Amino acid sequence: MPSINSAKILILATDGYERSELRVPLEQLRGRGATVKIASVKDGEIKSWDKTDWGDTVSVDLLAKDVKVEDFDAIVLPGGQINPDKLRLEKDALRVVKEFVNSGKVVAAICHAPWLLVEVDALRGRQATSYWSIKTDVQNAGADWKDEKVVTDKGIITSRSPDDLDAFVAKIVEEVEEGRHERRAA
Amino acid sequence: MPSINSAKILILATDGYERSELRVPLEQLRGRGATVKIASVKDGEIKSWDKTDWGDTVSVDLLAKDVKVEDFDAIVLPGGQINPDKLRLEKDALRVVKEFVNSGKVVAAICHAPWLLVEVDALRGRQATSYWSIKTDVQNAGADWKDEKVVTDKGIITSRSPDDLDAFVAKIVEEVEEGRHERRAA
Repeated sequence: MPSINSAKILILATDGYERSELRVPLEQLRGRGATVKIASVKDGEIKSWDKTDWGDTVSVDLLAKDVKVEDFDAIVLPGGQINPDKLRLEKDALRVVKEFVNSGKVVAAICHAPWLLVEVDALRGRQATSYWSIKTDVQNAGADWKDEKVVTDKGIITSRSPDDLDAFVAKIVEEVEEGRHERRAA
Repeated sequence: MPSINSAKILILATDGYERSELRVPLEQLRGRGATVKIASVKDGEIKSWDKTDWGDTVSVDLLAKDVKVEDFDAIVLPGGQINPDKLRLEKDALRVVKEFVNSGKVVAAICHAPWLLVEVDALRGRQATSYWSIKTDVQNAGADWKDEKVVTDKGIITSRSPDDLDAFVAKIVEEVEEGRHERRAA
């Protein structure tokens, strides 16, 4: 039976990620037995945004420039207003997002993180959601925007806000297991 | 001779505006004799973002819902990552931006504030600039994006970052004086 407990998941973020949108996937996926690594465009620690102000930090496991997509089954992109806005200017981060999209592996973006999918033009012709404030950017990038907790279209999973985290993580698990199942069957 | 010293300028912002992008236009335009009012979607004070963290506040003069476009010659939209992202969800703020655009009065947006012009679909077919991170959003909204300190197209002035503030304010003065000149000549 396909299982999340041998999956390898990458979280890509930098300073200003919304705390819960990194912590909840990290803890829930690790809790299911997955190996979860955190990549960033800087080494050391990255600082969270906790609802209305800077929060605690998390350790970076590897740099975006060193990420090999073949080492992972899925990428998770936390939101926050600041984090994806910074990453849009980082070519190493965009290379990683683009390679995951092109690989057909699971790509999961929540809240403001769909900006990164806009940046690599991954949403054209796809159904997607996002935080409500960036709906227009997501639509202008060619997506069919849905006001739903979680939207999945050909391996790209999107959610709107921290309130959707349980559905977001459940869908990541489901898609990773489906993907592993397909690869086994292939 | 047309002059800035009798002009009325509105600045529209909320918490998280980049401090210099509100303060510099406010002080320079007041220094030239213009009347400058600050509108927001909340009363009292709004809190700046000063480069890397929350900064000081400024007093709000009037609520967006009470703004009458006919009372002003121009609107200035400061950036910051947080401020325009919040305003995109505020229908009173978007009503004000849209009415200024439709009026043909001077509309000036810097840094991340062109998101508000994206939101009211004011950039289609226009030349514009913005902070580099939102270039794709501005292009996807139909603009011809230029990497220049200040870009003006039919009354809409855009600049990239705080480093462009002097050119941005100078262009606001120039466009307001041209507009007043045209109205006097008409």
